[in-house]
Amino acid sequence: MEGRDVVAINQPLLPHRFSLLRLRNHRETARAIRTMVVRGAGTIGATAAYGLAQAYSEGVDIDRAYRTLLETRPTAADLKHALDRVRRRATSVKEALAEAEAIADEYVERAKQIAKIGLPLITSGTRVLTHCNAGWLALVDWGSAPAPIYLAHRRGRKVFVWVDETRPRNQGANLTSWEFLQEGVPHKIIADNAGGFYMKRGEVDLCIVGADRIAANGDVANKIGTYQKAVVARENGIPFYVAAPSSTIDLTCRSGDDIPIEERDEDEVHFVSGVTTGSKLARVRVTPRRAAAGNPAFDVTPARYITGIITERGIVEPGQIRRRFGK
Amino acid sequence: MEGRDVVAINQPLLPHRFSLLRLRNHRETARAIRTMVVRGAGTIGATAAYGLAQAYSEGVDIDRAYRTLLETRPTAADLKHALDRVRRRATSVKEALAEAEAIADEYVERAKQIAKIGLPLITSGTRVLTHCNAGWLALVDWGSAPAPIYLAHRRGRKVFVWVDETRPRNQGANLTSWEFLQEGVPHKIIADNAGGFYMKRGEVDLCIVGADRIAANGDVANKIGTYQKAVVARENGIPFYVAAPSSTIDLTCRSGDDIPIEERDEDEVHFVSGVTTGSKLARVRVTPRRAAAGNPAFDVTPARYITGIITERGIVEPGQIRRRFGK
Repeated sequence: MEGRDVVAINQPLLPHRFSLLRLRNHRETARAIRTMVVRGAGTIGATAAYGLAQAYSEGVDIDRAYRTLLETRPTAADLKHALDRVRRRATSVKEALAEAEAIADEYVERAKQIAKIGLPLITSGTRVLTHCNAGWLALVDWGSAPAPIYLAHRRGRKVFVWVDETRPRNQGANLTSWEFLQEGVPHKIIADNAGGFYMKRGEVDLCIVGADRIAANGDVANKIGTYQKAVVARENGIPFYVAAPSSTIDLTCRSGDDIPIEERDEDEVHFVSGVTTGSKLARVRVTPRRAAAGNPAFDVTPARYITGIITERGIVEPGQIRRRFGK
Repeated sequence: MEGRDVVAINQPLLPHRFSLLRLRNHRETARAIRTMVVRGAGTIGATAAYGLAQAYSEGVDIDRAYRTLLETRPTAADLKHALDRVRRRATSVKEALAEAEAIADEYVERAKQIAKIGLPLITSGTRVLTHCNAGWLALVDWGSAPAPIYLAHRRGRKVFVWVDETRPRNQGANLTSWEFLQEGVPHKIIADNAGGFYMKRGEVDLCIVGADRIAANGDVANKIGTYQKAVVARENGIPFYVAAPSSTIDLTCRSGDDIPIEERDEDEVHFVSGVTTGSKLARVRVTPRRAAAGNPAFDVTPARYITGIITERGIVEPGQIRRRFGK
């Protein structure tokens, strides 16, 4: 936050351009979340909290601003969690801003805890498979899924990561790989189709993914494709972990069936963005002009495929979520 | 074949441009196969057969030309099958050409048989999931996997197809969708990540894929990602069929472990081709410049995940392959 502006990394330009974006009011902030200029469970939560703080400073109707921000992404639990906190606790601009800052700080703190708690899973030589981006772009500072990877790498453990490119928006190819290059973590980008091949060949020791919403029974909504990976991992006896702060848990959802799944614009399937050989940003259509596409943004992985959920409070079996996090 | 030239569809330009390519000698033909300008199990076989016929007319060393053509794609069984037939039976240009034509004609005939034999699997309302392209671009005329779909559609049965885009080369998004648009078959393109989502929601009744090599025990090598889909299909109780002519069966491979898996250039993962808004063909890089990628072109689906193999001789359980096709 700078003055009244939310300042965010313009994620769709990565890895080709690093640029910051000023979001001058809560409507611009909402649009940035909806269009995924700002994305990733925790980053959405923190950004929305700042967006609501903007609404306080704009003097607009807070309930309406709350709804505008909430309706941007239907699946993300952290979004509602953060907005509820600001609205419940703040009665002034100052308090709203303080609450948004507290939320962002908590994500940083929780990421550090997730890193420490997940660290023992990664010994020297461990080959991890990740899906989508749940790193510091997605979750402030260290993120969730890669947090233990970063810590293991900094402690000198030899870790290698298979990075699912994560179609249709390529967050693995664009963002996770870029983060790992910054940190020097050895990795290879692979088509989402290839993970099973490496699992069956015995070249994956562990899967770690993030989460967008975790139901009370331990079912996990995460980026589309997570479910397939979890099924194939179990088939090959490979542990499958979800890493997420407790704010991603939504006990009002009894199971994954209660989690709304966002269907996004089919153009995300039709078009791919990148850079030309002349280093210009460009978008190309990969499908025939008259073709239709389906584009569910998330899927639900049933609890039975999940080995454990790495939270800031410890590694929890999915079946224990309600007991550990219920009131 | 026109004169001494092999004339082929330039597949990498589809669906954006339809253009024919003249391959003027067996080396050009080999290069077209290696670079996947010409691709798909049967099309590779028929084209290689014509390439060897070219070698006869060029008066070059036939064994060397045979090896040049054979080494283009290590996984494809039809390639070797077709080349062996021409070399074994032909002693002149004329005989080589006749044999190549016989091979191409047989693919057409077998595709028709596969269409008829697979037809009962598709009733009105059936929703099929396909992976990659095994249509007429891949297998001369009607192809293998979509052949029953085409026939059902022409007979007026309401069939709907989920078309996996099939990264990294997008044969589903580029070729299968384009074929279906030509034929008027209702379909939607989906990210390879999304198939499991639709399976779990009960929106897939049947999977049909092609094959690049079938081992004696019924294990099937096919486009990367097939294995994941087969595992998730079984998990959801969805029948998973492989459609392929008997020339794809290689009894010298006892199991899938004996099938060599081609690792292709990692640039196939880094770059995506398409058209710009100005309708220009363009290639964009989607990954960070210093990133590395893994790119296995195929995977092996163990026989236990496969409901049946649709061949021109009938639907065969994978465990019966040796008994039915052994000598």
